Amino acid sequence: MTGRVICAGLGPGDPDLMSVRSHRLISGARHIAYFRKAGRAGQARAIVEGMLREDAVEHAMEYPVTTELPFDGPEYKAALSSFYEQWAGRLAEIARKDDVVVLCEGDPFFYGSFMHLHVRLEGLVPVEIVPGITGMSGCWTATGVPVTWGDDVLTVCMATLPEDELTRRIAGTDALVVMKIGRNLPKLRRALEAAGKLEEAWLVERGTMAGEQVRMLAEIEGEVPYFAICVIHGRGRRP
Amino acid sequence: MTGRVICAGLGPGDPDLMSVRSHRLISGARHIAYFRKAGRAGQARAIVEGMLREDAVEHAMEYPVTTELPFDGPEYKAALSSFYEQWAGRLAEIARKDDVVVLCEGDPFFYGSFMHLHVRLEGLVPVEIVPGITGMSGCWTATGVPVTWGDDVLTVCMATLPEDELTRRIAGTDALVVMKIGRNLPKLRRALEAAGKLEEAWLVERGTMAGEQVRMLAEIEGEVPYFAICVIHGRGRRP
Ligand SMILES: C[S@@+](CC[C@H](N)C(=O)[O-])C[C@H]1O[C@@H](n2cnc3c(N)ncnc32)[C@H](O)[C@@H]1O
Ligand SMILES: C[S@@+](CC[C@H](N)C(=O)[O-])C[C@H]1O[C@@H](n2cnc3c(N)ncnc32)[C@H](O)[C@@H]1O
Repeated sequence: MTGRVICAGLGPGDPDLMSVRSHRLISGARHIAYFRKAGRAGQARAIVEGMLREDAVEHAMEYPVTTELPFDGPEYKAALSSFYEQWAGRLAEIARKDDVVVLCEGDPFFYGSFMHLHVRLEGLVPVEIVPGITGMSGCWTATGVPVTWGDDVLTVCMATLPEDELTRRIAGTDALVVMKIGRNLPKLRRALEAAGKLEEAWLVERGTMAGEQVRMLAEIEGEVPYFAICVIHGRGRRP
Repeated sequence: MTGRVICAGLGPGDPDLMSVRSHRLISGARHIAYFRKAGRAGQARAIVEGMLREDAVEHAMEYPVTTELPFDGPEYKAALSSFYEQWAGRLAEIARKDDVVVLCEGDPFFYGSFMHLHVRLEGLVPVEIVPGITGMSGCWTATGVPVTWGDDVLTVCMATLPEDELTRRIAGTDALVVMKIGRNLPKLRRALEAAGKLEEAWLVERGTMAGEQVRMLAEIEGEVPYFAICVIHGRGRRP
């Protein structure tokens, strides 16, 4: 065993915002792996476009197709689990001889897909993680307003939570970040309104990427893209 | 007016973890500014050691001495406020002719000191912010365990909060980050115990820096350094 599996955080989207270490590892890698939806180019791969070695071997880890199975049902979970199991095995196999760099959007240990490989690689092979700038840092920077001051409490939660819990979380914090919005925008909007904070909520789409949009959430009708984050800024102590 | 004030996030401490953009801006800058305590070298300056242009002009922004005045008393706040006011003016003055790069540990808009200059620079001069990897990302990566999964709620709070609020925040979240620990370690420890989570709490000192230490918080007696973060990992949904 001479290689490692290295998960390189990519940051929020702008390639210029990845770390010096991730940049060096990615541009020197002989083996590169990344997740993507079947038939899509994939955001992680897009970020490193033009950065790879000419002889780099690419391993596209395509998620099992989800249209026939209910997302979050037991069958889909089993399909996902065996998908991660297989890829953990294949990456460990490559790492017998060589390093393999796995791309991960944002910061790998912060709601990242790599974590599902990570738990399955433990004990099989040396694993290294390079942290990255989170999507939320890219998004609150894009609003042009600092997110937390002094003793502010920051709550990060997912729009997939039940509406009453979402409302309670929004009401009970100083600063707020909500991720995984997608189809949950109407629910999130109701929860923000119930918590009395709809007017303070910003929505950042594709933060730091091409097509970035920064708007007040109350103005938005219809769907939002996968890369969308809601931000409420704290107003804590400041001299 | 031809220059800008650019605040460059430095990441958690390891210079290799700053962004490609911050690295480029810092190594090309003619004017570099950074906060430090009077008589100290300062962590921000230490991170960029060996990286500056030979002809770089350094502007050390030394915090007003705090020993005579009670921290958080009105007089100290006034002293700090005029300190920020003066430096905002001086940086704006430099930016009339040239760019000036202000160093900021971690991510500038996340509890960063630059924010106090930022509010005072608005309207005076063009300001740009380069996000960075937060100290907390560096610290949870150092634990070797992912911090948030699936629908986990993450709460970030300061150990400077009152003990009962700290206890309530710790009890009411999945994943936890506590910053600004210092002398508040005994209070934080009591709050973790009261919330029934003392055994799950990690303490990371000087994450990604020389002298990094990762331990269970329950094992620690006495003082912790300024750069110390408490982490409790979430245990959310995972296929
Ligand atoms: C599975 S999580 C991955 C988080 C990632 N590991 C990180 O550190 O940001 C995916 C969610 O991150 C958020 N996200 C990540 N990057 C983003 C960006 N640049 N702009 C907007 N949202 C982003 C979106 O809310 C999306 O639903
Ligand atoms: C004023 S806040 C600045 C936070 C910074 N802007 C960031 O993004 O991480 C200072 C606190 O950050 C935490 N911190 C920052 N970097 C750290 C590191 N590398 N290791 C441990 N703690 C760190 C400590 O809790 C410290 O009290």
